[in-house]
Amino acid sequence: MTRKQLHLNAFLMGVGHHEAAWRHPRTDATRVLDVAHFQDLARLAERGKLDSVFFADNLATGPRVRNNAPAIFEPITLLTAMAAVTSRVGLIATASTGYNEPFNLARKFTSLDHISGGRAGWNIVTSGGVDEAANFGYDEVPDHAGRYDRAAEFVDVATALWSSWDENALVLDEESGIFADSDKVNTIDHRGPRFSVRGPLNSPRSVQGRPLLVQAGSSASGKDFAAQYAEAVFTAQRTLTEGQDFYRDLKSRLRRFGRAPDDLKVLPGIVPYLADTEADAVGLEAEFTDLISPEYSLRQLSWMLGTDLSGHSLDSPLPPLPPIEQIRGNKSRYQLVKNLAETEELTVRQLIGLLGGGRGHRTFAGTPEQLADELELWFDGGAADGFNIMPPYLPGGLDIFVDQVVPILQQRGLFRTEYTGTTLRGHYGLPALPSRTTSLKG
Amino acid sequence: MTRKQLHLNAFLMGVGHHEAAWRHPRTDATRVLDVAHFQDLARLAERGKLDSVFFADNLATGPRVRNNAPAIFEPITLLTAMAAVTSRVGLIATASTGYNEPFNLARKFTSLDHISGGRAGWNIVTSGGVDEAANFGYDEVPDHAGRYDRAAEFVDVATALWSSWDENALVLDEESGIFADSDKVNTIDHRGPRFSVRGPLNSPRSVQGRPLLVQAGSSASGKDFAAQYAEAVFTAQRTLTEGQDFYRDLKSRLRRFGRAPDDLKVLPGIVPYLADTEADAVGLEAEFTDLISPEYSLRQLSWMLGTDLSGHSLDSPLPPLPPIEQIRGNKSRYQLVKNLAETEELTVRQLIGLLGGGRGHRTFAGTPEQLADELELWFDGGAADGFNIMPPYLPGGLDIFVDQVVPILQQRGLFRTEYTGTTLRGHYGLPALPSRTTSLKG
Ligand SMILES: Cc1cc2nc3c(=O)[nH]c(=O)nc-3n(C[C@H](O)[C@H](O)[C@H](O)COP(=O)(O)O)c2cc1C
Ligand SMILES: Cc1cc2nc3c(=O)[nH]c(=O)nc-3n(C[C@H](O)[C@H](O)[C@H](O)COP(=O)(O)O)c2cc1C
Repeated sequence: MTRKQLHLNAFLMGVGHHEAAWRHPRTDATRVLDVAHFQDLARLAERGKLDSVFFADNLATGPRVRNNAPAIFEPITLLTAMAAVTSRVGLIATASTGYNEPFNLARKFTSLDHISGGRAGWNIVTSGGVDEAANFGYDEVPDHAGRYDRAAEFVDVATALWSSWDENALVLDEESGIFADSDKVNTIDHRGPRFSVRGPLNSPRSVQGRPLLVQAGSSASGKDFAAQYAEAVFTAQRTLTEGQDFYRDLKSRLRRFGRAPDDLKVLPGIVPYLADTEADAVGLEAEFTDLISPEYSLRQLSWMLGTDLSGHSLDSPLPPLPPIEQIRGNKSRYQLVKNLAETEELTVRQLIGLLGGGRGHRTFAGTPEQLADELELWFDGGAADGFNIMPPYLPGGLDIFVDQVVPILQQRGLFRTEYTGTTLRGHYGLPALPSRTTSLKG
Repeated sequence: MTRKQLHLNAFLMGVGHHEAAWRHPRTDATRVLDVAHFQDLARLAERGKLDSVFFADNLATGPRVRNNAPAIFEPITLLTAMAAVTSRVGLIATASTGYNEPFNLARKFTSLDHISGGRAGWNIVTSGGVDEAANFGYDEVPDHAGRYDRAAEFVDVATALWSSWDENALVLDEESGIFADSDKVNTIDHRGPRFSVRGPLNSPRSVQGRPLLVQAGSSASGKDFAAQYAEAVFTAQRTLTEGQDFYRDLKSRLRRFGRAPDDLKVLPGIVPYLADTEADAVGLEAEFTDLISPEYSLRQLSWMLGTDLSGHSLDSPLPPLPPIEQIRGNKSRYQLVKNLAETEELTVRQLIGLLGGGRGHRTFAGTPEQLADELELWFDGGAADGFNIMPPYLPGGLDIFVDQVVPILQQRGLFRTEYTGTTLRGHYGLPALPSRTTSLKG
């Protein structure tokens, strides 16, 4: 009997997730602008038979640009360039429901799915940043509930557009001159509170029918949204217990939407520092921590906590924080950081060190074997269906994961030794969609 | 002394510009969905040392999908996949100012420019279709003047965003930890009637500073817009005299915006049917004409003329047409078709035959030598700075142009035998932009 398989996504970011990765001798900072760097990473992920690569996104750059700028390329464009040099690995782009038009975004993902032969995925985000709002005509961030309402209508419209061409609508009958069977290309006639979209989409159904739907919200509304729409969820969980709670909670919400637990894969993030000995790995992590700019980190932390910390002493604990109701942006990240600081009684400096590698995600320092143990523990322990691997530096941090951790997981029968399908949905073990997906709501 | 050089753009569309190209034995219809087909076309254009390739776009598909569907891929995505397999040829994508957000679009073009090493171009369109309007919440097409006002503000915002990072803003100083010089990354603080955008863009200045700006409007407001903003203009001109008038008119408008005649290149379109003898070329064109579906063509014509022609006899002249003031969409195409039908006293069937190849663009049937003569005549005669080559079928129609027409133009000293630069602006003989482009208005 074969064991249940875990799923691995490479979360890519510039020359590494660590905020100071670009300063470390293991990276070449100039590659942040080099498409060949990202194409190499895609090839590397494919060599490791990973399910997918993924880019986060942010529709603004603020004063923190002084020390880092994580989202230099628009993800769909960049992933298209990476699609051109690979044939199997999935390609997941973050895109905002707050500041796009459903027709345009649905179409771009269909293009990426056509171009990549069925490897597109969409990380659905609502864009909670105030800097982002200011680039799209808003003085304030639209409120949390409103953002999720818009996201739901947006995804409903996009899903309808993706189903507006039946699978066999493209006829191409040279004899009769029938290009498409117009009975199989239908308007969607959506008229909702936020969008009116007639359709059909101007592109035939793509290989997967539509992109894999991914989400990363962790508030109650975020989790309900994921339970209704998402096929994979990225999440930041720091301990096995927290991971198990989140996993159980999220899976339990699926039934309400007529979905089975396996219809949605939960992928906690992990930032791995790997070396031949645990001591060396810990030393490596410390090298990165030493490169952190407190100025940058304070800005990041201020942003996460909705509290201006500039001028606050690094060696004191956090000042009193506003209640969660006042957080308009990322409520779950606020909660995570607040809990962490309080339960472990951290000073601001200690907190910054802990967050530097993964902005709240779990970091891990050890040998490849130890990391494999840890992943197996979470997988078997009901905290994960797979993992969002966040290399602190790139390409080296992904290279070592692919060359040294993946083979161990393969030996243990936990991870594929070859791709068995060609689509991203296939890699995640999701069934192909019916020709006409009327709705995900079942 | 070297002769002034002409510019050549390959206007690509599915398996050819002729509306029935997909039915002809010289094409493989299934390639409309095949990214490798488009990558081959890009390589082919680069082999011919062409300035650029170009995709039109349309944000809707209507009932005409039964016989053809020209815009299956989103252009920026498709051109990114083509960028990945080429290194010199320019990449011009159509994108709408009507149904995008300036921040998002500016960023996508910056991504394409980074990815391609400075080869991005933007064909700026205002989207005059009623099917398009219905996909973006409008019951009617926004009026012509309003569309151009929005386009102007849109391009102003985009241009400001592209200048929000100075050329040397990205510092990457590992020692000090300075990633970017924040004094050289500035907000734009745009507050206009249609857009409020704070900026800066979240991406460093790209190789060209911004994409080449291309436009194709031919109404008075369209020409003024081009004179103010565009660096290249695509246009449909059927006779040398019309071409000369348009050229003179457009160039004369430049001074008002502080620009020199050479700052904007005029590229009339031409649909070439080529063969070893003129008779064979004419025969080839007739083969395509015979494949036209009158049903499809009547729909296209109805759309161009703002008049429902379904049921109208093919062998009668056009019915009375509404006055041009009532045309909300493409006023200049309406005028061109109306003039053509009236001055040549055509029946609807004859008109359809004439329009089938290039939707109003000039078609040409002859030998490669004859085509070269014709291009030279227009170029020397002050009607063109270059041409928008619209192969009726693909890839064959581009192949024969590259292999048989380009060498003649090169022998005559009219066209480059090697690329001399690496950027699209360079190919069009435009100077590099200063580090901080405040505005194109001079
Ligand atoms: C791994 C991961 C990646 C994320 N990527 C993005 C991103 O690229 N852009 C973004 O705006 N938000 C991103 N988020 C934030 C989530 O989309 C979401 O807004 C956040 O978790 C807050 O959710 P909540 O409002 O439901 O608490 C990410 C979150 C996680 C855990
Ligand atoms: C070669 C050429 C290509 C064009 N491509 C597009 C296009 O891709 N999408 C579009 O909406 N309009 C396109 N147009 C139409 C023009 O952008 C413009 O709307 C049209 O010429 C009408 O201009 P006017 O309103 O100033 O008369 C094109 C026109 C020409 C001549």
